Amino acid sequence: MNKEELVDQIKSKKSFLCVGLDTDITKIPKYLLNEKDPIFEFNKQIIDATKDLCVAYKPNIAFYESLGVQGWESLQKTIDYIPNNIFTIADAKRGDIGNTSAMYAKAFFDTLDFDSVTVAPYMGSDSVVPFLQYKGKWVILLALTSNQGADDFQFFNNGEQQLFEKVLECSKQWGDAENLMYVVGATRPEMFTEIRKIVPNNFLLVPGVGAQGGSLSEVCKYGMNNEVGLLVNSSRGIIYAGSDENFSEEARNSALVIQKEMANLLEEFKII
Amino acid sequence: MNKEELVDQIKSKKSFLCVGLDTDITKIPKYLLNEKDPIFEFNKQIIDATKDLCVAYKPNIAFYESLGVQGWESLQKTIDYIPNNIFTIADAKRGDIGNTSAMYAKAFFDTLDFDSVTVAPYMGSDSVVPFLQYKGKWVILLALTSNQGADDFQFFNNGEQQLFEKVLECSKQWGDAENLMYVVGATRPEMFTEIRKIVPNNFLLVPGVGAQGGSLSEVCKYGMNNEVGLLVNSSRGIIYAGSDENFSEEARNSALVIQKEMANLLEEFKII
Repeated sequence: MNKEELVDQIKSKKSFLCVGLDTDITKIPKYLLNEKDPIFEFNKQIIDATKDLCVAYKPNIAFYESLGVQGWESLQKTIDYIPNNIFTIADAKRGDIGNTSAMYAKAFFDTLDFDSVTVAPYMGSDSVVPFLQYKGKWVILLALTSNQGADDFQFFNNGEQQLFEKVLECSKQWGDAENLMYVVGATRPEMFTEIRKIVPNNFLLVPGVGAQGGSLSEVCKYGMNNEVGLLVNSSRGIIYAGSDENFSEEARNSALVIQKEMANLLEEFKII
Repeated sequence: MNKEELVDQIKSKKSFLCVGLDTDITKIPKYLLNEKDPIFEFNKQIIDATKDLCVAYKPNIAFYESLGVQGWESLQKTIDYIPNNIFTIADAKRGDIGNTSAMYAKAFFDTLDFDSVTVAPYMGSDSVVPFLQYKGKWVILLALTSNQGADDFQFFNNGEQQLFEKVLECSKQWGDAENLMYVVGATRPEMFTEIRKIVPNNFLLVPGVGAQGGSLSEVCKYGMNNEVGLLVNSSRGIIYAGSDENFSEEARNSALVIQKEMANLLEEFKII
């Protein structure tokens, strides 16, 4: 999916919601454990209940990987089940030397056919570029993350800029707004202004709204551009909104609350 | 495996060689493609041929992941096949927010029973600590990597220290020499002196000898401590030394050349 198509989807659905599929076998409704593949069955029902309210799904790869071969099977079925007009993000935070990153790119873009993958920047250009070489696919590079540990290194400062700013400046030479997005946590909305000076046109994937405490309207105030430029993720707040047979209905209700707020914000910012 | 046991293995085998299992379906001998699981069959023969010459095996997870479910099965069989007295490294370069890193730790320490996993530091303490909470398991944290892209961010300097030094300083508060190692590339042997001032007792996993051009004797000169403190990896130089039915014999010959050099160095540095 290219940027134009993504923006069209956002306008049409009045939503820039990404639903995070952090599907945890210990947290899904107990009755699903009788299914042959409880993880996929849970995802299927979540997707059915929310696909008209969101523009992206983001399976968190760790949750599948933790189950070994079986988890990988559930992931394959999930990505196959997501409708083609919805953007897919492998939240994998991969990154290694060139020949190895090429293998990770193959894993997520060829074998699993995701639209995008999250990548960690520590190892520099040759760890990121192999992902960018896939035409029609996207890298979502970690810039400023939503967790407390972000303070440890991401604000490291050389007197002129902080590390996350250096990552933005440097990486925008490797790709452009048509194949490179950035992860910027909602827990630091005041940083969006600075970030938008460096990358005005790139989409930002924003975790941290909901369970982690970030504010959607603050994120839009400082982060939205004239093509929206934001995918805001919610995982636990949607998929674990309910805990029994009604879980998918509860998930839909939670997603709907966010989608309505997004529709209002899109109008307020004169996008639609 | 704890540090004492690892050092004992090194002294007994006169080797601190780690064999990297970067097993690529397009590079293994063609005749193996008739096997039910060519990747595992290749690994099995490499392990049989080299297990008395090395103290660690390091499957490069990307190569397995690129094959999807089937790759994950080959990885499971490979880790089950490696003898218990050999240290195992999941070269995965994972790292995410706390609850997600906990899932990656489960994947590699519970589901697959590796001794250690490589972790990327960009997201800070809460992305690393969940791995350190597994008793008897190890984190191998990226510090200074062997690739060219390392120049992009790892030398970012705040006037007092460079980012990789900050990573070393900061992370040694999270673990100790009994559960925390670091990745330091052999391609920059002059940096080992500075690194040893910060982490004198931690083991270093050293890629970049062989195909990437690093020198083993230089690495030892600047990086060895009185408990050896080094695991030096070779992947392509060993596993792809041969390309036909004799591949495992050729791999053994290549490993033997390195092991002999290592035995001489261990004597020179009065470890054995």
